[in-house]
Amino acid sequence: MPALRTALLQSSGSLSDVAANLKTLDAAAERAAATGAGLLVCPELFLTGYAIGDDVAKLAEPADGPSAQAIAEIAVRHGLAVVYGYPERDGHDGDDGGTVYNSAQLISSDGSRLANYRKTHLFGGFEREAFAPGERTVVQAELNGLRVGMMICYDVEFPENVRAHALAATDLLLVPTAQMHPFQFVAESVVPVRAFENQLYVAYVNRTGPEGDFEFVGLSCLAGPDGVARARAGRGTELVVGDVDPEFLAASRANNPYLRDRRPGLYASLV
Amino acid sequence: MPALRTALLQSSGSLSDVAANLKTLDAAAERAAATGAGLLVCPELFLTGYAIGDDVAKLAEPADGPSAQAIAEIAVRHGLAVVYGYPERDGHDGDDGGTVYNSAQLISSDGSRLANYRKTHLFGGFEREAFAPGERTVVQAELNGLRVGMMICYDVEFPENVRAHALAATDLLLVPTAQMHPFQFVAESVVPVRAFENQLYVAYVNRTGPEGDFEFVGLSCLAGPDGVARARAGRGTELVVGDVDPEFLAASRANNPYLRDRRPGLYASLV
Repeated sequence: MPALRTALLQSSGSLSDVAANLKTLDAAAERAAATGAGLLVCPELFLTGYAIGDDVAKLAEPADGPSAQAIAEIAVRHGLAVVYGYPERDGHDGDDGGTVYNSAQLISSDGSRLANYRKTHLFGGFEREAFAPGERTVVQAELNGLRVGMMICYDVEFPENVRAHALAATDLLLVPTAQMHPFQFVAESVVPVRAFENQLYVAYVNRTGPEGDFEFVGLSCLAGPDGVARARAGRGTELVVGDVDPEFLAASRANNPYLRDRRPGLYASLV
Repeated sequence: MPALRTALLQSSGSLSDVAANLKTLDAAAERAAATGAGLLVCPELFLTGYAIGDDVAKLAEPADGPSAQAIAEIAVRHGLAVVYGYPERDGHDGDDGGTVYNSAQLISSDGSRLANYRKTHLFGGFEREAFAPGERTVVQAELNGLRVGMMICYDVEFPENVRAHALAATDLLLVPTAQMHPFQFVAESVVPVRAFENQLYVAYVNRTGPEGDFEFVGLSCLAGPDGVARARAGRGTELVVGDVDPEFLAASRANNPYLRDRRPGLYASLV
């Protein structure tokens, strides 16, 4: 099975300007496809921006809304799958009805919506006010022979969440994020450790620079099961690519017994 | 409450020579005490060496055996607590009877045995043949106003184990280890991440250099709740010291909501 070249779009796009962000995504998909990438991963809330405050209600869309359709067209046009973060409205058609989640959606290169994940571990005051928490930890899909899983930002900082994916045989964990100063230790160290301790790849894709009251730190990475970052961005807007290699992953898992050596009977206090 | 200066004795001592290792420990305790340390942490199986093969049965001692008494005298003489790894015989007096564990014991500066921990997650063929696994994950004691916990080597690589300590309010996790090439990523990255994600200090104290079929990597560290190593050894024999600061720990915990933001109801697959 060939490696899946994965492109990480580190960008904050344009705040509250969905049309501009779709254009940015389209251009990034073209560049990613030109590198041979089969997957493009965008940051948390890339569709709308993060510091959207009260505009959440106005900007939220259903998982099959107009932006999902536009992104499906982008995915088909450039022949690669796309993961993007967006505010998801569930349950009503109107602007103010239903429940709003902080979500990420995976759309395949044939335009089909493969998986939609709702952030389970909301971070800070803005998120808790704007979004309802998701209730499903492990959301997966099959992509190019890999089992991919999805998670958003703060979720990955909890070892329990990534472990749940490892136990569900996730090969590649896609993590749109909006990681802020002064927490760069997460991007630099926690993410590679998550990949190592769970024997999977993690694509962690961040926003960058100042936005409202926030300051995002960039440092997006594709971490392998050996804890080595196959791709790593700096602090600014960047598109970086790295390979997810199923053969390397299988060999790494064969040599690393973490999942076989667990003793679940001793972990009762965690639940 | 004053900080607890903690000394890390990175040394492989002398293989199978308990008397020599007690002398090394005595000298290290004197040097540690001279720095103001209140605690000296030694590596896994420091009392006997790690690559002792079939000598395990001969060298194993009860938790209150002659070496424990000798180390209690060292602790009293130098006025500091000592943690050390040793092969523990439980249940019979004879050389061949009972069960043998890979254990670590904490002896206070007044000579009392404060806690004894039996490694729950055994690593590799030698350990599985030589030792029975412990069945108790969280072993703690009070020391200088801190709640200290104990763990050995491979145990700390499982996020579940350290999380269990965090949930049990461990402030300082003492981890004698025998960490081998090519797993230095554990010493360099996993240990600081454990401290950060669980908001506690971790004292990770390794053996060094070649021993039988093994090659230990050193790189002992005292990692703080911010993920920063307050002390870090190189590859050779060294005594390094760092402070465990209860006020810094309290402030870090107040600012970091990991334990408050957990959602245990979502982690059922881990147990």
